[in-house]
Amino acid sequence: MRESDGVADLTDVTQTQGGWLSSNDLEQARGALPIVYIEAVPVRVDALGNVTHVGLLLEATPTGTLNRTLVSGRVHLGERIREALLRHIEKDLGPVALPRIPTDPTPFAVVEYFQSPEVSGFVDARQHAVALAYVIPVAGDCEPSSQALDIAWLTPREAASQDVLVQMIGGRDRVLRMALAHAGVLP
Amino acid sequence: MRESDGVADLTDVTQTQGGWLSSNDLEQARGALPIVYIEAVPVRVDALGNVTHVGLLLEATPTGTLNRTLVSGRVHLGERIREALLRHIEKDLGPVALPRIPTDPTPFAVVEYFQSPEVSGFVDARQHAVALAYVIPVAGDCEPSSQALDIAWLTPREAASQDVLVQMIGGRDRVLRMALAHAGVLP
Amino acid sequence: MRESDGVADLTDVTQTQGGWLSSNDLEQARGALPIVYIEAVPVRVDALGNVTHVGLLLEATPTGTLNRTLVSGRVHLGERIREALLRHIEKDLGPVALPRIPTDPTPFAVVEYFQSPEVSGFVDARQHAVALAYVIPVAGDCEPSSQALDIAWLTPREAASQDVLVQMIGGRDRVLRMALAHAGVLP
Amino acid sequence: MRESDGVADLTDVTQTQGGWLSSNDLEQARGALPIVYIEAVPVRVDALGNVTHVGLLLEATPTGTLNRTLVSGRVHLGERIREALLRHIEKDLGPVALPRIPTDPTPFAVVEYFQSPEVSGFVDARQHAVALAYVIPVAGDCEPSSQALDIAWLTPREAASQDVLVQMIGGRDRVLRMALAHAGVLP
Repeated sequence: MRESDGVADLTDVTQTQGGWLSSNDLEQARGALPIVYIEAVPVRVDALGNVTHVGLLLEATPTGTLNRTLVSGRVHLGERIREALLRHIEKDLGPVALPRIPTDPTPFAVVEYFQSPEVSGFVDARQHAVALAYVIPVAGDCEPSSQALDIAWLTPREAASQDVLVQMIGGRDRVLRMALAHAGVLP
Repeated sequence: MRESDGVADLTDVTQTQGGWLSSNDLEQARGALPIVYIEAVPVRVDALGNVTHVGLLLEATPTGTLNRTLVSGRVHLGERIREALLRHIEKDLGPVALPRIPTDPTPFAVVEYFQSPEVSGFVDARQHAVALAYVIPVAGDCEPSSQALDIAWLTPREAASQDVLVQMIGGRDRVLRMALAHAGVLP
Repeated sequence: MRESDGVADLTDVTQTQGGWLSSNDLEQARGALPIVYIEAVPVRVDALGNVTHVGLLLEATPTGTLNRTLVSGRVHLGERIREALLRHIEKDLGPVALPRIPTDPTPFAVVEYFQSPEVSGFVDARQHAVALAYVIPVAGDCEPSSQALDIAWLTPREAASQDVLVQMIGGRDRVLRMALAHAGVLP
Repeated sequence: MRESDGVADLTDVTQTQGGWLSSNDLEQARGALPIVYIEAVPVRVDALGNVTHVGLLLEATPTGTLNRTLVSGRVHLGERIREALLRHIEKDLGPVALPRIPTDPTPFAVVEYFQSPEVSGFVDARQHAVALAYVIPVAGDCEPSSQALDIAWLTPREAASQDVLVQMIGGRDRVLRMALAHAGVLP
């Protein structure tokens, strides 16, 4: 659901693994079926599991504005959801982020993105996406990938502030607040 | 993930709504992407919400054997998961089943079906399906649709018996036991 | 955690069932152990399970102000959580509220109330209470009990407005927003 | 709910913190109120979060037989559930077990133990206990405490075998299978 996703798919097209699609095939599929996504809210936790910080990605959009966003991306053909979570977190936070993929593969929310804002309030201009959303503690060092300009680690209170929420588009501010509520740290 | 699903899609092809696909397009999509499914375990409950009975569908396979199975089917383009749940339950249990679609759209499990039994243990010979699984109380009268030969209402103990579990294929016996565990009635 | 709870226990003391305690015994227990509570957010839902309205109780406090609150109360000795849910909902919403007690007895949140606001942000001046919180659809007619002055049915947007949230004490506004987030209707 | 619990409370009585009770006070409370417990299924996970092994404690009962059991214990007055989880895991698995307490404090199941086997099927001869149950990955070295004779790390398949399940009492075999189902590894 991120603008960068199409680019990534274009780059990936030389891969031989069955999970990859040409841009053209992906466009065709998007006109026919809902697409399975994962969405992850990276967090820092203390020894008791309390969320101390939330990681938000800063990205430049094609129109030149800056958005804050979450880790997200497609689940490939033949790929486990766990594998997609790990792959997208490493893509966005770097190879030594050391995410703790949950034992329980059930998401805290299923977020339904539609092209029209009227259906669910969650919007993805390119497609109908069914995103499985997870809160993922990361224990290692994080460095922004080429797609993201920066990663900011905010306290739950900072992350839930109006200043930050208005920088998130497509309803991702609601996903963030749902994640904070789920983790018991919605201010 | 049911054998009948391809037939249903073929019949549906004259619909004008964007959610429908021709059999050909669906085959192509199945070779490219994971497909979003819902899976529902219909149950009868008492006034305290205790599961008293589980509804299993009896179906004839193309090879002539009889299987027990759950309610399942694709989520269409542009369709909410809630709508897909209601549509498939009404398709399999009839129009007056009166299912209680949950307020919380989060599934009790995400079941990942692959063509190879090695990946997750859940098998669908036709596709990689990501099925969102729900326990759904039904309050009304249920009558088997044309696809299902019969609906049997079994106690949790009967449903979890070896006699019944061996009649379920593709790992659906595990989905059933996960549903019973989730509802607190796994014997 | 409601002010009325002590009074109810006093009245109940003549009951012979083991679950009841004298006010004195309850005070002693509160000084020794965390007390098990249930907390319920009553909701109206449409046929697809979407939450259309949230029921909030209006209560007069001993100091004369008006608060909005949720259904809550103790779990008695020997009582199932399901039974406590049904009992407290019928006590607060009347005998024909027809609540749909969930098949899955797992709460959407465990809310920890302490006497000091520093521990968790959830406060109960009288005790350490561990409250299991549920979103409960009610299908029947609701009438306020003697304890509650009124029940107001608000849309999720109205319920999450500042005007309403400031009328809830002890952190119950956060429980309400967590419930809305869980049900996918946090504005 | 473990036989050792009363002994532990007796030892703890010299502590000054408000959470501790004399054996006598605890007995009195058990006759009056449900007692809040935590229950933890310790697991080993791989980098993708898959459960590879389940840790079961081996304990000698007063009657001389050997039981397999889970980590469990009371939540003290004034104690967060997270703190109780950490305290009991360190008590049973040693100080360097490095448990990953979940960000989300919601249990995968609420297990209701009663003195009579008829009420819920979960039995605790001493009390009505409401146990919040969690699957907890542990990353460090585990060594049995003085209470436990040994810790065995079994694969999910071994843990769910009849040989092992019959060694668990009070319904803990069902809690274990519910945990395996929740983590997607019930065979």
